[in-house]
Amino acid sequence: MPYSYLKPLLEDNGSKIVLLVMDGLGDIALTPEGKTALETASTPTMDRLAHEGTLGQTIPIRYGITPGSGPAHLALFGYEPLEYVVGRGALSAAGIDLPVNRGDIAARGNLCTLDKDGKITDRRAGRISHEEAAPIISLLNEVQIPGVKVDVRQVKEYRFVIVMRGEGLEADLHDTDPQEVGVPPLKVQAAKSGSEKAAKLLTEWIEKATEAIANQPVANGFLLRGFASDPGLPSYEDAYQLQAACIAEYPMYKGVSRLVGMDVLDLVGPGPEGEFETARKYWQDYDFFFIHIKKTDSYGEDGNLDGKAHIIEEVDQALPSLLDLKPDVLMITGDHSTPAALKSHSWHPVPFLLWAPATHRTDLETTFSERNCARGGLGTFPAVETMSLALAHARRLLKFGA
Amino acid sequence: MPYSYLKPLLEDNGSKIVLLVMDGLGDIALTPEGKTALETASTPTMDRLAHEGTLGQTIPIRYGITPGSGPAHLALFGYEPLEYVVGRGALSAAGIDLPVNRGDIAARGNLCTLDKDGKITDRRAGRISHEEAAPIISLLNEVQIPGVKVDVRQVKEYRFVIVMRGEGLEADLHDTDPQEVGVPPLKVQAAKSGSEKAAKLLTEWIEKATEAIANQPVANGFLLRGFASDPGLPSYEDAYQLQAACIAEYPMYKGVSRLVGMDVLDLVGPGPEGEFETARKYWQDYDFFFIHIKKTDSYGEDGNLDGKAHIIEEVDQALPSLLDLKPDVLMITGDHSTPAALKSHSWHPVPFLLWAPATHRTDLETTFSERNCARGGLGTFPAVETMSLALAHARRLLKFGA
Repeated sequence: MPYSYLKPLLEDNGSKIVLLVMDGLGDIALTPEGKTALETASTPTMDRLAHEGTLGQTIPIRYGITPGSGPAHLALFGYEPLEYVVGRGALSAAGIDLPVNRGDIAARGNLCTLDKDGKITDRRAGRISHEEAAPIISLLNEVQIPGVKVDVRQVKEYRFVIVMRGEGLEADLHDTDPQEVGVPPLKVQAAKSGSEKAAKLLTEWIEKATEAIANQPVANGFLLRGFASDPGLPSYEDAYQLQAACIAEYPMYKGVSRLVGMDVLDLVGPGPEGEFETARKYWQDYDFFFIHIKKTDSYGEDGNLDGKAHIIEEVDQALPSLLDLKPDVLMITGDHSTPAALKSHSWHPVPFLLWAPATHRTDLETTFSERNCARGGLGTFPAVETMSLALAHARRLLKFGA
Repeated sequence: MPYSYLKPLLEDNGSKIVLLVMDGLGDIALTPEGKTALETASTPTMDRLAHEGTLGQTIPIRYGITPGSGPAHLALFGYEPLEYVVGRGALSAAGIDLPVNRGDIAARGNLCTLDKDGKITDRRAGRISHEEAAPIISLLNEVQIPGVKVDVRQVKEYRFVIVMRGEGLEADLHDTDPQEVGVPPLKVQAAKSGSEKAAKLLTEWIEKATEAIANQPVANGFLLRGFASDPGLPSYEDAYQLQAACIAEYPMYKGVSRLVGMDVLDLVGPGPEGEFETARKYWQDYDFFFIHIKKTDSYGEDGNLDGKAHIIEEVDQALPSLLDLKPDVLMITGDHSTPAALKSHSWHPVPFLLWAPATHRTDLETTFSERNCARGGLGTFPAVETMSLALAHARRLLKFGA
């Protein structure tokens, strides 16, 4: 349960909270003259909100820890990420609306290519297209063995999710992906004795499934990783008395939102504008909107600072339509940093903007940037405090003690 | 174990980390016009690093807590100081390379003077010289009792360490130093029942040893404090995959470094210059260098702000030779504050400078000072996070979660 001290203080007053996450927003300037993506972007609306509201910076997991997307989002949602560990398989399955119930196990899969000796020649089968991969993944979905039910569902291109449904399946299993070519896929191995039943059944299924696609020309093998089971997270409604909605383009983020009981909304259009229009359409139906922008992270990973800055500008240009809805609390932040200079996620603190015109405390900072956020009125704080701040500024928390 | 979540993320990439500790660096300015020692000192090189890198300030133990040197250094090394409590006796013994093994107990000793009634007249025997004290301490070392082996070794001047080696000796014992004159030394008393065996043996030894030096003219008694046993700290290699070296002039700091498995290097010369030259000599042999400057603290304790500032300037002048070695991460900080205005250790946050040209995030601060560090990009953080930040900026930590 997110902070248990919140629960007795909760009061549903009908206020509206928006958490706008630009994935990997945080950036670095390696030199005093350098600029981050956020500093490069022209963001008049965010700067106005920064001037009116309060800045700060978050530590996603712990000092020095570079988070994956799953734990970084769980932290923003108020779930202590070292306590609530959700396997990638369960996240991915949730992201394509494939339920993972107690006793089931899920994993991520890649199609790959194998040579005549069964050794991997390409771990991603030449990144074949969605259309090329679809029929092969369908063949995998047809493979069944006694005692369990197996669902295999394409995610995107050569990537799929597998869910094995049964009883007493535990997910402490090692990946079959050896993370290198020139060797065969690894056997499924149980990391704990409780997982031996699952290992045995998966080994059986993998054998049969490998035969089923052995003669496919573009991808004749597959690799599994991130075995996971239902993490059993408490819901937003239970933890915060919030009816919460997720507005996101990518499966992963829909997945983690579903795990905490958010409704995932159908987008009315693409990009930030489409996402904000989606918020407008459903505005009366929810208390809390999590809006996720993916491409800031993608450009960061590519080392494309200007591309990242451009996405931030797109968000800024679309923001007035979100502000028209008059949220009581608007928070703009990232889940972690993805500095273009490092071309990867990083541990650096993440800029955080809180705007709540009826309750915020204005600080001395006037523009939204990493440098200013470091000196902002909220200080440097753990991302897992985000929901407490949101609820407080929305006046949804009663006094603690008399 | 320092943060257990670090261990599965560690990756040895051959990068080099330097932790430069100016003991008691933090200072206070009591008035708006006043300056701290760091603000008084001319430090062009540190200011350049501050401009290029990131500042912050650490809380050594907890808010408001004034640390001793032992816990302050353990925190910087990543060992939660409220969890890893190392007695001063064990630290001092380690500092002079006197092993304290499981079952042994160690304590610090002072020679003192006693009047004819056995009452203390000077707790430090007039701070007699190393040469005067040496033969008296030798006499103590000769005193043995059945069932245990006792080692007494001079540290400096009137100060010594005693280690009693045996079986089942527990160190929960009260000091014999009453911290005042005009009263006799206290009896050794067990603070817990498990320590009664040790108390009995020590009482026996103290009686015999007091007789042995009763007729010495310059010091005819002694006081013991800081009883401690082997703390069993995990090593730097185990906790961080770092081959670590200590470069320090004073026994205490060598001691605490040895307790975490650092190699203590022989200095090639005195002062900051000699210490940095020592780093150069051993640069290829280690991943991590802890370099300790003592005199900032000593001048702080003396209330000599200018003396403290002068030492900081000496360090600054020698710094270019350290930078020539091209460390991947250089951190410059103190273990705690020793404000000259207070003539003692204090609880104030400690200035922290992080310079890692390939990974740091430049902030708005341009000079290394307490005032600027309070606004720096790293925020105010527990000293125990120092190693996580070091490993991250050295790119020695993999991503947490997917």
